[in-house]
Amino acid sequence: MKKNRLLTPGPTPVPQEVLLSMAKPSIHHRTAQFRKIFKEVNDDLKYVFKTQNDIFTFLSSGTGAMEAAVVNLLSPGDTAICVGGGKFAERWSEICKAYAIKTINLDVEWGNSVNPDEIEKALNENEQVKAVFTTLSETSTGVLTDIKKIARITAKKNAVLVTDAISALGGEELETDDWGVDVVVSGSQKGLMIPPGLAFCSVSPKAWKLVEQSKSSRYYFDFRIAKKALDKGGTAFTPAITLCIGLNKALQMVKEETLEKTIRRQARLAAALRMAMQALGLKIFAKNPSNIVTAVCIPKGMDGDTLVRMMRDDYGVTIAGGQGHLKGRIIRIGSMGYMDEFDIIAGISCLELVLCKMGYEFEHGVGVGAAQKELLKSE
Amino acid sequence: MKKNRLLTPGPTPVPQEVLLSMAKPSIHHRTAQFRKIFKEVNDDLKYVFKTQNDIFTFLSSGTGAMEAAVVNLLSPGDTAICVGGGKFAERWSEICKAYAIKTINLDVEWGNSVNPDEIEKALNENEQVKAVFTTLSETSTGVLTDIKKIARITAKKNAVLVTDAISALGGEELETDDWGVDVVVSGSQKGLMIPPGLAFCSVSPKAWKLVEQSKSSRYYFDFRIAKKALDKGGTAFTPAITLCIGLNKALQMVKEETLEKTIRRQARLAAALRMAMQALGLKIFAKNPSNIVTAVCIPKGMDGDTLVRMMRDDYGVTIAGGQGHLKGRIIRIGSMGYMDEFDIIAGISCLELVLCKMGYEFEHGVGVGAAQKELLKSE
Repeated sequence: MKKNRLLTPGPTPVPQEVLLSMAKPSIHHRTAQFRKIFKEVNDDLKYVFKTQNDIFTFLSSGTGAMEAAVVNLLSPGDTAICVGGGKFAERWSEICKAYAIKTINLDVEWGNSVNPDEIEKALNENEQVKAVFTTLSETSTGVLTDIKKIARITAKKNAVLVTDAISALGGEELETDDWGVDVVVSGSQKGLMIPPGLAFCSVSPKAWKLVEQSKSSRYYFDFRIAKKALDKGGTAFTPAITLCIGLNKALQMVKEETLEKTIRRQARLAAALRMAMQALGLKIFAKNPSNIVTAVCIPKGMDGDTLVRMMRDDYGVTIAGGQGHLKGRIIRIGSMGYMDEFDIIAGISCLELVLCKMGYEFEHGVGVGAAQKELLKSE
Repeated sequence: MKKNRLLTPGPTPVPQEVLLSMAKPSIHHRTAQFRKIFKEVNDDLKYVFKTQNDIFTFLSSGTGAMEAAVVNLLSPGDTAICVGGGKFAERWSEICKAYAIKTINLDVEWGNSVNPDEIEKALNENEQVKAVFTTLSETSTGVLTDIKKIARITAKKNAVLVTDAISALGGEELETDDWGVDVVVSGSQKGLMIPPGLAFCSVSPKAWKLVEQSKSSRYYFDFRIAKKALDKGGTAFTPAITLCIGLNKALQMVKEETLEKTIRRQARLAAALRMAMQALGLKIFAKNPSNIVTAVCIPKGMDGDTLVRMMRDDYGVTIAGGQGHLKGRIIRIGSMGYMDEFDIIAGISCLELVLCKMGYEFEHGVGVGAAQKELLKSE
C-alpha cells in the first residue's frame, strides 16, 4: 500500500486522466483523427510558449531538441556564446563541440546566474557570434536566469537568442514573442505533465534565416523537413502518438487553469518550499532561485545521497540529489507540473522525518509550519 | 459503440495489459526500480534480435536509429551501397546524402527485391565501400529481402551490413549473429507491440571498429555516448520511461509465446491474407512477399485511397494506402504484432463489404473462405 510521490525536477507526476487518455486503443497517425489532435496540440503549445512562431515537435528527449537548435542554426566553424552554470547549461557547449562550432564559454559558478552585461560585452567584442545559448531554469542548480534582459541585448544584435526552457516552460514567466526569444527549446516530462518523449523548438523569423544558411549535416532534426510536414499538419517521421494524445489532454488542463494561474501556483509552492528550508536551517543553493526546482544545501557531515535514498526507500518520496561536483552536497526538490499544496507538504514532512533519523537537530514540524504560513499568506 | 481495428503496417495494436502497465503512476529513471526494468528490456531485446551484441535504445522514431547507423559508421566522403526498392529503403540514401556520404544506389523496381549477386558485384567493383544498407521487409511494398544471403557476401568483405528491421523484427526470421548482420535497426510500434517512440540499433564488433573511426558529427545518436551509459545500465539522456515499461511487458508476452511461435503465427496470418486476396481476384504486389505487410493491387478504375477511407470511416478498420507513385494503386494490410485469426478475418470481411459497395464483382465470403481454409491447413 506504499504510495510513491515524485518531487523530482522531472519526470513529474502525470495526472490520472492523462495516463488513461494514453491507455486507449492505438490510432494511426496518418488519419484525420490524429491530425485534429496534433493541430490542437500545436495551437495550445503556442499559448504556453506565448508565441506565434512555428513550434516543431520532435520524438526525442529534450537533448534532441537542443541538438536540433544547434545544427539548424549554425555551420561548422561558426561561433556561438554558451552560457554555463550547471550540468544542462554546459550541454550547449558539448553539443556545439560535437558539431565543430566554436564556442565562447561564459563560465558561471554553479549556483549563480549570468550577468547579462557579460553577454553584451562578449557580443560587442565578437561580432561574428551567430547565437547565444542560455538556460531559463537550470535543473542541476535551481537557478533562474534573466532571459528578458538578455533578449533586450540580443534584439539589437545579429545573434539569435536560444533558451533551454525544458524544465521552466509552463512554470516560469516566458514571453517568447514579447521578449524576443528566437528559439525556445522544451520537453514533455516537466511542466507539461506527460511522460518523457516529446521535445519542442519554437523558431522566430530571425532564427529561420540562419536555418536556411546552416551547412551542418542534419536529417532527423532538420527544421526544414519538420516545417514541410508541419505545414501539412503533421510530422515528417512517425510521431509519438500516445504522448501527443496525452499532451492534448494535459494542455487542456493548463488552459482550464490558465497559464497565468499555473505559473502563480508553482511560484507559491516554491516559495513555501523555500520558507520551510529556511525554517529548518537549510540554505537555498541558488542565488536567484527558480520556482521549478529548489536546490538545498546539505549540512556538513551529512550525505545528501543517503537522505535521498532514505526518503525514497523508506517513504516512497522521490526527490533528486546533486549532480557533478554537487553530488551528496545538495538535494533538489521539484515543484513544477501537476503539484498542489499537500504534495509539497508531504515532501517537507518526509524530509523532516529523514533529517531526524539522520541526527539533524530541529523542532519537528517547523518546516511544515513555515510552509503553511507562506501558503496562507499567498492564498 | 464502433470499434476501431488497426491493420496498418504500424503502428500496430497495443495489448490492453501493455497499455495499462504504461498508465501506472510515473517513476523516475535514475532509480534501481527503472534500472531493473531497463536491464530486463535489454536482455529480452537480445532474445528477439538473436544477438549477443550491444543493443542501443534511443528515444526517437525508427528514422532516428537509421540516422544513428549512418553517422556512427561513416565519415563524410565515405562510400556506401544503398539498396533501394521502396520509400523506406530510399531513406538510407537520403540520410547518407544529408551527411555527405557517397552512395552507390542499387535501384530496385518497387515490388521486387534486390538480387544479392548485384551487391556482390558492386562490392567487388568498389573496394572502398564501408557499409551496405538494406531493408528486411519494405513497409511501402511488402517485399522481403534475402538478408541471410547478403550477409554471406558481406561477411567476406570489409563492408558492414546494416539492415532496417523496423517492421520485420519479431515477425520475420532474422538471425543477427548467426547470419552476421552487423547493425540491425528497429522500432517499437511494429512487431514489438508498443506505441511509437523507441528505436534500437544492435552493433557487432566489426561495426564497432567503424564507430571508432567515424568523423561524422553526432551527439544525441552517438553510439559512444550510448555505450558508456549502457555499460552503467542506463541511457545517456532521459529515456521514454513509460514506453520502456510497456516494452518490458510486451517482451514478456513474446517470451511466453516464444519468438519461434510468434513468427510462425504471423506467417500463418499473412498466408491466409494472401489466399483471400487471390480468391478475390486481387494480385499481391510483392514478388517475394513478407509476412509483415501485404500489399495488394487495386483493380483498374478503382481508387485505393477511397477504399482505405471507406473501410476506416464506415467500419473502423484502418489499413494503409500506397505511398509515392503507388498512391491509390495499392492497399497495404498489416499482420504483424498483436494479431490473431479473427483480426485478419475482420479485415478481409471489411474489405469484401467495401469492394462490394464500390461495385467490384465477386462472390461474398470467397475471401474469408479462402483464408479460413489456409488457417485450418496450417493449424
